[in-house]
Amino acid sequence: MLTKIAGGITAPQGFKAAGVHAGIKKNGNEDVGLIYSTVPAAGAAMFTTNKMAAPPVQVSRQAIERGAARAIIVNSGCANACTGEQGLKDAQVMALETAKALNIDACEVLVASTGVIGVPLPMDKVKAGITQAAAALSENGHEAALAAIMTTDTFKKSCVYEFKLDGKTCKIAGIAKGAGMIHPNMATMLSFITTDAAIAPAILKKALSEAVELSFNMISVDGDTSTNDMVTVLANGQGGNELITSTDSPAYQEFYAALKVVCTELAQLIVRDGEGATKFLEINVTGAGSFADAKLAAMAIAKSPLVKTAFFGQDPNWGRILCAVGYSGAKSEPEKTSLDIGGLTIVSNGQGAAGFDTDKLKEVMAAKDIAITVFLGMGEASATVWTCDFSYEYVKINGEYTT
Amino acid sequence: MLTKIAGGITAPQGFKAAGVHAGIKKNGNEDVGLIYSTVPAAGAAMFTTNKMAAPPVQVSRQAIERGAARAIIVNSGCANACTGEQGLKDAQVMALETAKALNIDACEVLVASTGVIGVPLPMDKVKAGITQAAAALSENGHEAALAAIMTTDTFKKSCVYEFKLDGKTCKIAGIAKGAGMIHPNMATMLSFITTDAAIAPAILKKALSEAVELSFNMISVDGDTSTNDMVTVLANGQGGNELITSTDSPAYQEFYAALKVVCTELAQLIVRDGEGATKFLEINVTGAGSFADAKLAAMAIAKSPLVKTAFFGQDPNWGRILCAVGYSGAKSEPEKTSLDIGGLTIVSNGQGAAGFDTDKLKEVMAAKDIAITVFLGMGEASATVWTCDFSYEYVKINGEYTT
Repeated sequence: MLTKIAGGITAPQGFKAAGVHAGIKKNGNEDVGLIYSTVPAAGAAMFTTNKMAAPPVQVSRQAIERGAARAIIVNSGCANACTGEQGLKDAQVMALETAKALNIDACEVLVASTGVIGVPLPMDKVKAGITQAAAALSENGHEAALAAIMTTDTFKKSCVYEFKLDGKTCKIAGIAKGAGMIHPNMATMLSFITTDAAIAPAILKKALSEAVELSFNMISVDGDTSTNDMVTVLANGQGGNELITSTDSPAYQEFYAALKVVCTELAQLIVRDGEGATKFLEINVTGAGSFADAKLAAMAIAKSPLVKTAFFGQDPNWGRILCAVGYSGAKSEPEKTSLDIGGLTIVSNGQGAAGFDTDKLKEVMAAKDIAITVFLGMGEASATVWTCDFSYEYVKINGEYTT
Repeated sequence: MLTKIAGGITAPQGFKAAGVHAGIKKNGNEDVGLIYSTVPAAGAAMFTTNKMAAPPVQVSRQAIERGAARAIIVNSGCANACTGEQGLKDAQVMALETAKALNIDACEVLVASTGVIGVPLPMDKVKAGITQAAAALSENGHEAALAAIMTTDTFKKSCVYEFKLDGKTCKIAGIAKGAGMIHPNMATMLSFITTDAAIAPAILKKALSEAVELSFNMISVDGDTSTNDMVTVLANGQGGNELITSTDSPAYQEFYAALKVVCTELAQLIVRDGEGATKFLEINVTGAGSFADAKLAAMAIAKSPLVKTAFFGQDPNWGRILCAVGYSGAKSEPEKTSLDIGGLTIVSNGQGAAGFDTDKLKEVMAAKDIAITVFLGMGEASATVWTCDFSYEYVKINGEYTT
């Protein structure tokens, strides 16, 4: 039984958070965030597969190897990416300063950054911000911490759920930032998840990896995989359940279901707030020869600028969807392919559906949430990808980002 | 010695062309084009790799297998793609009607279509157009034929060159259409090349394949590989040179050089007229471990909506270029990577270049033609890709295409 509840990243027991304005962002908003478990916690994380992985990713990747972490220090306004040796030193200093302020070990600190690429961090401001954030840590700090990870996001992305493990009430909460440079591969831009469930690190890692594969790794805003993608989960065991040590246990199934719901909800919120997005598109590819094929086809549709602009303009140019399937690399044959948009059958086994009505399709495309289903007729596998449309506003936001 | 000359697709000896308005396009412009060699000609062609390849592609692919062709019938306004069995019949009827009108065999006719996907051809209009075009064939029909292949193109794309083979003057001419759904893979949207050089079909095929790989296959407007891509070359031998039968001959080198120049010029014209384009970007990736790696990295930059909108907005957000290299799949290491935009060194071996000036970069980005060079430091291979920026106009054109 999974119940949605109010609150934020500090809802699970034993977590505190803070967010402060250190002066990195020009607009005066919070730009240094801190999430902290008052007791040691199991930790797992997934990172970008971008070869230009930013220094904070490098530092966090090493720290999480132990399967434990207690603090996440994050800044927005500067991605500390493509910053060379100095960038790596700066990320290490962020971990060290956080550890010092919290009286913990530097290897217990994960570091994350988001913002402009190629600019060095203003370390004096960052250091002062860390001291200030550590002093401000509280159970009410979740809103400020969430504000501190936002860049071009237009709304806050957060959710909290309660569930039972061995009769004990446990909680799981997550926050995320998104908006642009969203085409995760292993993890999305930034997402931090806390839970007071007790779960062994190796099992936590497996759960995260599977949940991410079906949530964050199934969304795309613009096809650009960021240098700073990171999703982490800290599990501090304060919920009091018996430590989960096997994926075969019913408790694991409960926990995994909760984690997957949080990851999926945050991933979908990222798409809904995609830069310039006016529509939320769910792309289902069914009847594929394999999951990989289904994902290839769904992602090709999700990334196609022609499909995305057609939905923005509510232009019933559905051929572009099948065109994307055709170049996706997925096994397909025109005469076995069917297409359905918002419940309207457009193509059936490669033939235009009888009685198909362009005006009805226009009506369907006027909705804000639209489901597209492509049936390949090649097998039993399926995949669902979420994306948004491509608007004037996307061009505006990204033509004016640094200036 | 290659000399650019005036004229069009009918400049090589023994070629005629025509373009007529058959009523497929709503705007009254030419929409059925015909190109014809008055004598049998060697032919070679390359087609889209899109699995949803349109019926005209299927028909032409089969016809060209003999290594010979005399006529190309093409219509715009309707792509005859995703049209099922009826679409295939319609493409076959286009070849048959053309053959009948010209008193040649149907297997000597190549068929091409471009326009909206998923709509059946209005065959009565097409048939009447074919009869009309065949009657109108002339050496002065090149402009009308060129008009007949345009869709959202804003200018005509054509070039003619003269060169010597065995002391004989030969000519080569090409036309192309482009604008959107441009991310060729084996061939671009539509391009037709004529030459009066004498060359054996197998050799012609090899020359075309190599020239296309370095020209049409090195451009991208929006990353969408069309269902109808096709590039053909007809060589009718009327120039009087000795038949080229080997790639080792100096005549082959002359011919290949001319063909490559024509392909490259047409490919670049397609990019310059990319839907909504305001800038022409040349992306050079050097020091790569292989040509495949260099092309992967260059194409990732060319396809990135974040890079393309940054150039549109003249926003000096150069980190997005390295980010794209990082997720491209090409072998690279941040500390070995260098970046140069318009002659301005931005990053040198992973470190921000000393004295780099954002205002200077803005100035460079204000130009219409901009070269971007990424040095990977992993080997000796290189690749050059051409692309355009991503503007409000692209969104407008593609949100309103069919309606």
